Amino acid sequence: MLKDEFDFINKIKPKTIYQSSLKKGIGDDSAVFEGNSRFDELICMDTMVEGIHFTKQTMTPFMVGYKALAVNISDIAAMGGLPTYYLVSIAVPTDWTEEDLNQLYSGMTKLGNDYSIDLIGGDTVSSKRGLVVTVTVCGRIEKGKSLYRSQAREDDYVFVIGEVGASAAGLDLLLKYGHHHSTYTENEEKLLHAHQLPKPQVEAGHILAKSEERISLNDISDGLASEANEIAEASNVVLTIDYEKVPRSPFIQTYSEEQQRKWSLFGGEDYQLVGTMPKAAYPKINQTFNQKGIKLTIIGEVTSGEANVYITMNNQKEQLPKKGFNHFK
Amino acid sequence: MLKDEFDFINKIKPKTIYQSSLKKGIGDDSAVFEGNSRFDELICMDTMVEGIHFTKQTMTPFMVGYKALAVNISDIAAMGGLPTYYLVSIAVPTDWTEEDLNQLYSGMTKLGNDYSIDLIGGDTVSSKRGLVVTVTVCGRIEKGKSLYRSQAREDDYVFVIGEVGASAAGLDLLLKYGHHHSTYTENEEKLLHAHQLPKPQVEAGHILAKSEERISLNDISDGLASEANEIAEASNVVLTIDYEKVPRSPFIQTYSEEQQRKWSLFGGEDYQLVGTMPKAAYPKINQTFNQKGIKLTIIGEVTSGEANVYITMNNQKEQLPKKGFNHFK
Repeated sequence: MLKDEFDFINKIKPKTIYQSSLKKGIGDDSAVFEGNSRFDELICMDTMVEGIHFTKQTMTPFMVGYKALAVNISDIAAMGGLPTYYLVSIAVPTDWTEEDLNQLYSGMTKLGNDYSIDLIGGDTVSSKRGLVVTVTVCGRIEKGKSLYRSQAREDDYVFVIGEVGASAAGLDLLLKYGHHHSTYTENEEKLLHAHQLPKPQVEAGHILAKSEERISLNDISDGLASEANEIAEASNVVLTIDYEKVPRSPFIQTYSEEQQRKWSLFGGEDYQLVGTMPKAAYPKINQTFNQKGIKLTIIGEVTSGEANVYITMNNQKEQLPKKGFNHFK
Repeated sequence: MLKDEFDFINKIKPKTIYQSSLKKGIGDDSAVFEGNSRFDELICMDTMVEGIHFTKQTMTPFMVGYKALAVNISDIAAMGGLPTYYLVSIAVPTDWTEEDLNQLYSGMTKLGNDYSIDLIGGDTVSSKRGLVVTVTVCGRIEKGKSLYRSQAREDDYVFVIGEVGASAAGLDLLLKYGHHHSTYTENEEKLLHAHQLPKPQVEAGHILAKSEERISLNDISDGLASEANEIAEASNVVLTIDYEKVPRSPFIQTYSEEQQRKWSLFGGEDYQLVGTMPKAAYPKINQTFNQKGIKLTIIGEVTSGEANVYITMNNQKEQLPKKGFNHFK
């Protein structure tokens, strides 16, 4: 068992690169390599495990298929690219029926159709316990336009696309009551769906990539705090976030302030985007987003200094670690 | 649980194709899509599961890593391509230590270095029981030169690259005695290694792709009988194989005739190649293989008729099904 996944990834990260067409290997949301004269190729791979990332109580097979593909499409979106193809490998335990698997593939096909992407390969094997589904998504991006985490600079704005906190709130409900619970309110249903059927921000990412501006971008899979720290580390800058500006989902606003803070900063699995852009780029980009009806919110600024993330609230400022934080005095 | 993997794959195979750059989706060893002006891109994905494809008795962690990558490289070789990149996802149960995982990645790195390919992404998650390792390999092939299963035609030769049967014989030994057994003979060690550390036939596949000849090709993962049937089905032709000509591994020749037949026709996991070529192409291709020291053996012929595979032995001829067969009277 692994004590620290990030530490382990650093260890296995190759020291030598053989292929001259590689532009970005391990260390961003997707790898990038040279395609043709117009496009670079993107590729990413993510796994969901029954009993770890979902249970029969939190997700239907349809949702498992949908989400396993969605989280990978989100990694393509976080580079500013458009998805093209996907491959799926599933390790199937004896308690999953063929109808369950049909449903799982229906969930993928639904989302695949939404983005006009093709299932082009994979594997189907048995598992001793718990379904394991691994998806690889390929994508494309205009040559040289990938939005790396390392592109944040002093004096940039920090921004979020969409709203955060709903997925973690939905998971809380699912762990308490399960997805079969019949008396969820309309508001609660929104929270469940944020967790079960997240919508990757492909269009927003692609608008940013085509803006010709220097933009850093990350998708919010592990929580806003974690992703902001990844940008700070990769760019070696300081991000300072104003908590009051963080666009919390309207559907969590009936919960306590403490829960809202926890969900919106550390909850994760919202698959929205966080990034940085030059202040001068904001007006034009914001106008484009307004026209498209996509919510873009400035939540802070970038300054120079050793890689770090700070958060301000009630006129106090403290460090924002990747996971959890102490308190606001 | 799935009754029939092949049947299930046919069911999930997309009816609609969105991306115009796709040349081959589900249905061959790798998918093929347009790359740049010189190359097509290849991609494949295969999974190995502890307790299904290997156990701690049959494979060390190093071997698991090596083989998980090797079986995917073999799928690139079966298209005639050269591998370029790989991604790895592992679901890790609690009884695998970090040192085990380091060993697993060492096995991959060893093979990756042999082929000058780069690890560019993946995922590391927890598993409830049994290690699950999924590998995606990308590759390249000269534009339009992919060797599809569907390219067999009447009057072709059927050929095998390398020798078959050793892997299944090795697995037999490993299931009886395990890999820690100390008194294996030198001959037996060869059988174990054929199972544990198979060498994909990348060079041979690439020579065939560059031959400018119409060649069908398949790697021998599920056994010669199964792979020959896949070619017959995809090309809608009849393959007739002369059992006496099938190049059995010299290391199984001390075993009974019945065991040799079972291992060499149905054993699988040899990761050699089987294919067809026009008879007129044989002399030149054979000369090239001789110069490279790669063994190419003609084992039969292609005739027209409804898709089927026959095998002849002792002047008798019978149908050769994908899995197992009745007997030679």
